[in-house]
Amino acid sequence: MNRRIPCAVLGAGGYIGQHFVRLLAEHPEFELTWLGGGERSSGRALSDLWQLEEAPPPAFAGAVLRPTTPARLAKAGVELVFGGLPSGVAGPIETECVRRGLAVFSNAADHRMDPRVPLLVPEVNPGHLALLDGRRAGVGPLVTNANCSTTGLVLGLAPVLPLLRPTRLHVATYQALSGAGYPGVASLSIADNVVPHISHEEEKLETETRRILGTLRGGRVRDRSLSVLAHCARVGVREGHLEAVTIEASRSPSLVELERAWKQFDPLAKAGLPTAPHPPVELRREADRPQPVRDRWAGSSTRSRGMAAVVGRVRWEPPFLRLFLLSHNAVRGGAGGSVLNAELALARGYLGHGRAGGAR
Amino acid sequence: MNRRIPCAVLGAGGYIGQHFVRLLAEHPEFELTWLGGGERSSGRALSDLWQLEEAPPPAFAGAVLRPTTPARLAKAGVELVFGGLPSGVAGPIETECVRRGLAVFSNAADHRMDPRVPLLVPEVNPGHLALLDGRRAGVGPLVTNANCSTTGLVLGLAPVLPLLRPTRLHVATYQALSGAGYPGVASLSIADNVVPHISHEEEKLETETRRILGTLRGGRVRDRSLSVLAHCARVGVREGHLEAVTIEASRSPSLVELERAWKQFDPLAKAGLPTAPHPPVELRREADRPQPVRDRWAGSSTRSRGMAAVVGRVRWEPPFLRLFLLSHNAVRGGAGGSVLNAELALARGYLGHGRAGGAR
Amino acid sequence: MNRRIPCAVLGAGGYIGQHFVRLLAEHPEFELTWLGGGERSSGRALSDLWQLEEAPPPAFAGAVLRPTTPARLAKAGVELVFGGLPSGVAGPIETECVRRGLAVFSNAADHRMDPRVPLLVPEVNPGHLALLDGRRAGVGPLVTNANCSTTGLVLGLAPVLPLLRPTRLHVATYQALSGAGYPGVASLSIADNVVPHISHEEEKLETETRRILGTLRGGRVRDRSLSVLAHCARVGVREGHLEAVTIEASRSPSLVELERAWKQFDPLAKAGLPTAPHPPVELRREADRPQPVRDRWAGSSTRSRGMAAVVGRVRWEPPFLRLFLLSHNAVRGGAGGSVLNAELALARGYLGHGRAGGAR
Amino acid sequence: MNRRIPCAVLGAGGYIGQHFVRLLAEHPEFELTWLGGGERSSGRALSDLWQLEEAPPPAFAGAVLRPTTPARLAKAGVELVFGGLPSGVAGPIETECVRRGLAVFSNAADHRMDPRVPLLVPEVNPGHLALLDGRRAGVGPLVTNANCSTTGLVLGLAPVLPLLRPTRLHVATYQALSGAGYPGVASLSIADNVVPHISHEEEKLETETRRILGTLRGGRVRDRSLSVLAHCARVGVREGHLEAVTIEASRSPSLVELERAWKQFDPLAKAGLPTAPHPPVELRREADRPQPVRDRWAGSSTRSRGMAAVVGRVRWEPPFLRLFLLSHNAVRGGAGGSVLNAELALARGYLGHGRAGGAR
Repeated sequence: MNRRIPCAVLGAGGYIGQHFVRLLAEHPEFELTWLGGGERSSGRALSDLWQLEEAPPPAFAGAVLRPTTPARLAKAGVELVFGGLPSGVAGPIETECVRRGLAVFSNAADHRMDPRVPLLVPEVNPGHLALLDGRRAGVGPLVTNANCSTTGLVLGLAPVLPLLRPTRLHVATYQALSGAGYPGVASLSIADNVVPHISHEEEKLETETRRILGTLRGGRVRDRSLSVLAHCARVGVREGHLEAVTIEASRSPSLVELERAWKQFDPLAKAGLPTAPHPPVELRREADRPQPVRDRWAGSSTRSRGMAAVVGRVRWEPPFLRLFLLSHNAVRGGAGGSVLNAELALARGYLGHGRAGGAR
Repeated sequence: MNRRIPCAVLGAGGYIGQHFVRLLAEHPEFELTWLGGGERSSGRALSDLWQLEEAPPPAFAGAVLRPTTPARLAKAGVELVFGGLPSGVAGPIETECVRRGLAVFSNAADHRMDPRVPLLVPEVNPGHLALLDGRRAGVGPLVTNANCSTTGLVLGLAPVLPLLRPTRLHVATYQALSGAGYPGVASLSIADNVVPHISHEEEKLETETRRILGTLRGGRVRDRSLSVLAHCARVGVREGHLEAVTIEASRSPSLVELERAWKQFDPLAKAGLPTAPHPPVELRREADRPQPVRDRWAGSSTRSRGMAAVVGRVRWEPPFLRLFLLSHNAVRGGAGGSVLNAELALARGYLGHGRAGGAR
Repeated sequence: MNRRIPCAVLGAGGYIGQHFVRLLAEHPEFELTWLGGGERSSGRALSDLWQLEEAPPPAFAGAVLRPTTPARLAKAGVELVFGGLPSGVAGPIETECVRRGLAVFSNAADHRMDPRVPLLVPEVNPGHLALLDGRRAGVGPLVTNANCSTTGLVLGLAPVLPLLRPTRLHVATYQALSGAGYPGVASLSIADNVVPHISHEEEKLETETRRILGTLRGGRVRDRSLSVLAHCARVGVREGHLEAVTIEASRSPSLVELERAWKQFDPLAKAGLPTAPHPPVELRREADRPQPVRDRWAGSSTRSRGMAAVVGRVRWEPPFLRLFLLSHNAVRGGAGGSVLNAELALARGYLGHGRAGGAR
Repeated sequence: MNRRIPCAVLGAGGYIGQHFVRLLAEHPEFELTWLGGGERSSGRALSDLWQLEEAPPPAFAGAVLRPTTPARLAKAGVELVFGGLPSGVAGPIETECVRRGLAVFSNAADHRMDPRVPLLVPEVNPGHLALLDGRRAGVGPLVTNANCSTTGLVLGLAPVLPLLRPTRLHVATYQALSGAGYPGVASLSIADNVVPHISHEEEKLETETRRILGTLRGGRVRDRSLSVLAHCARVGVREGHLEAVTIEASRSPSLVELERAWKQFDPLAKAGLPTAPHPPVELRREADRPQPVRDRWAGSSTRSRGMAAVVGRVRWEPPFLRLFLLSHNAVRGGAGGSVLNAELALARGYLGHGRAGGAR
């Protein structure tokens, strides 16, 4: 690896933003050169805002967040923007960034349903990147990751979907506090409690899942025909979304075939993406796994910690396959998802001096 | 009410046993005269073992638990036994009690599937009490309550089942720590965590639900034909089981009809049972209810606190009705369930000088 | 009791405000006629804002909070105001209330150090009420309760202070989430964590303790000469402040004398105050008490639940007495403290047609 | 480094044992060759017993715990034993190990007060290692670490003790669940709660502190004359003991001098011990630190994560210095402490072919 692509994190003081900084601090392909802050966080040192259990990367602990506009980013030589801003706020800024030719990889929901924007989970629908081919000259690539509970769901199920051809998914979630960002959920709302509501989450689980599993044809994605009936609830866990899933299948493979599918699944095995876990889905056979505290950091290497989904308690009584799955909401379902998206985009020539330049 | 029936609590030092004592301390129909202890708890004062947030009833705080056998209970004039022993231990003792003519109302699983024993939730299947008519002369009545998550499920859904005629239930639970008794779950197992496994709980949810909703014909219960696909998980909450339920219906009533059914449901309205809540199911319309900490003590009176199920977040997209429901696992789903069972049995003449004495 | 005094709660939608409503809903001396709301809460129903585990009092659940000014209160016939507003906001409003002749009993810190205002814990310094005698004609009485951790400290120690004549107190607190109100502490700040800082709390513990234990002479309070060295920390508990206390004593009574002092302490035994617990301090001998979840609701009656302090783990190695104490921060250390203050003021003729009306 | 010393972990299935395995899995000086189990854990794979958030080291995840006796260890070529057995069980086994010439570094309390055994915190009392010089020929060295809360206390205060010459320490602890091992504290005992009692902990804090800070003279340690008045409580935190400390000083250095002492403290700077953190005590200036979730993994390198104590909220009002300090109870105060002790012993020639051999 020679030159690293200069990149920025927007909303670097937020919970997802901090995970972005953690993941990018020593990244072999991207060089973090700009920490963007909002009204409250600009001018403050990253270490003052830090919420994660892991200490801030030494090289950035003292870094001060800067008020950020797309113009300033472009001027500062940033080429690649990781979007950690809250949904709602993020949209217009990201639009302006790509108009100026910056590449944007966003965690926000604003552009996820935009027909021109890949809603990407690299192991699941890498081909959707081709949506970028249709963009206008001079416009930077914009790629979004999926909602945190959706990401875990589609990744964990991806290995067996071709065997099962499901018609319907029943999902109940046990979502972590960090899914709401900081300050997020009030402690008095969740101590000794569960809150059976997360705004718009059930809808996102359905619409995003159908889109990610959809087929790219004629320059647009046709949603998979699949019913997703979700219940979303918040539990008093710091990180790691657990999901109870029942798949209604139209095919009846054997349990051995299903387990083999999970074990052999590694579509990015040879892609050489630094943050990709191998395997991306871990199958556990214990009676009581996956669990947030034990499995959220699943991943095959230091760099890919928290990037693997974990599947367990598989119960197969055709046509119903039941299982629990877990993924780290802020890593795989957040910052790490977008970093991996950018790595895939780079590998496929959409960044730097490759296809991205050629899009103009 | 004149004479109160002398009663005992077996396993009075356990978590369910303590709720039994709390509920029976000033009961208008039953007089608590015996606190039964096991090997570890016999000889200790109730107050030393007390785990509940509410203080022990003053009249029993200093009471010492006694080593207990059916013979001693009979000798001491006890007529009615509330079973708070753990499943496995409880079975033989309960059998011996009824052989000696004592009435037993048990929280244990041992006899739940016994074809002669009513598995009773008074508002749901009161007619199953008639199973007692077939017992041999001299044998006391034995009635069990249902598993804690099953009780909440069948009670919360009872009002709408006739309208929906469901073919399948999808259930994911968020179960409280106290469901495992004391000491139960290790703190290191659940702090900052969710455990997606509770031994045999998913099976119980299916088999018990089918039995409770079954039809009594020819002296036995024919199970309801109904598929129950459950996922059971433990969360770090002290009391109150939350359940995410999706009902697959074969009928399509309007939402108005469903809500009316919930609101009008009160089959025991005129039964005069002291511990019965009116209504037994509370319907909430807020975006984020029911919640354990806010709704576990639902019930219309001081005596019926924790006896009502609470239903909320009703989403009806035929043929799927989605909702969350909550009930207090240790009260409605435990000690309170059995107390209410005994109240119903008394009202129907199975206890005291009524049918029980005349038992053929 | 005949006529009940019409009263209002300011900040009725807040955590302390809700406890005020709970305590006043069926009060024998005070009639709750006005629920005051702030900008965000005015116009909303109390039940929508409700945060407590116990359900809202039925008579007030549907009540709508009203925008409130002292003028409106006076016009509406309110005579007595319970102040549940946050410190900072409360001060000017309370001042204006008493200028209009209303009686104010406040939970806010704003006037606690005002030399004319009694900082009152009825069992500890009832005589300080006499500060009210010096107020100008037409001005209503203004009484504040103490900071939540201070109240528990002075109440729990009051029985033994005359025997010990301490020169210094070492205090470390384990304070509950509700001490910060709602929304208060972010869940991500406290889950799996302890936060060793509560703004200004350590100072308050020192200054308020010295004032409450001070002597009224010549119309003003001379602070007790007593060093209080505090460490204040927040723990993930909903309600109930625990404090580890080491008293440096100048006298050496026997342990028997100390225990007797705690047991016999009940200075309001004959005062007939509805919310007063008897005894106000409970002494426990178990190895592991007091605990928030087991002891926060200490109190001798339904009305006085949560009003007693609980002392335990007493270790006496002269000159150092070590103990843990607990009190319910939002009841005894909050709303209940002010209600009891008003009850004492009424009994001593400072309210209604007694001394207040006659106020010179 | 050439040959690594073959070592065993006793009690490898326990919470401290697992941290031992984690720390020794890739240790440059010690080679982990034996995982010892007890009755329940022998024959089970380490991964089945694993409780830590971090995954088990790949090389040992599948390793099966073995029933262990000192004879078997000696036969298997083990030279060095890390003791993770519970106090009470550990004593006789450790004694037998050293009788057979094995070196033992123990986390158990059994031998801590043995006058011939160094109670060692390397940065604080490295000279106490010389106690080993007095042992009989053929007997292996036995070194214990201190109780988990004691270790943090003496390490955090070590830099400033010479300046302050304290006469008394007041300590109140906020101790993590893992301090009690697994299963340890029942979840119902601690959820929404604090437990103000840990068996014998307060005594250990006093006696061990005095011993560690004592002076080695004439082949024995004379305890420091220092009063330690402790209150120990358990809070619902997974890992990391927080302590509120008030030091009564006999000297009055300036705050600048104190801070300088903390910052310059690194007595092992040149010792080259692999697990030693540099600095061993981190001083924080934020208003709300140290916190368990943010500071428990303090340490300058991957290997020394969790080995540094963190001091914050320093308040100096002579003669009282107040502060909070935090250390990882299971790392610095447990397994890591013993590993560091062994590293120091090796460096000083008490292990391998150095002084240990020469002791015979």
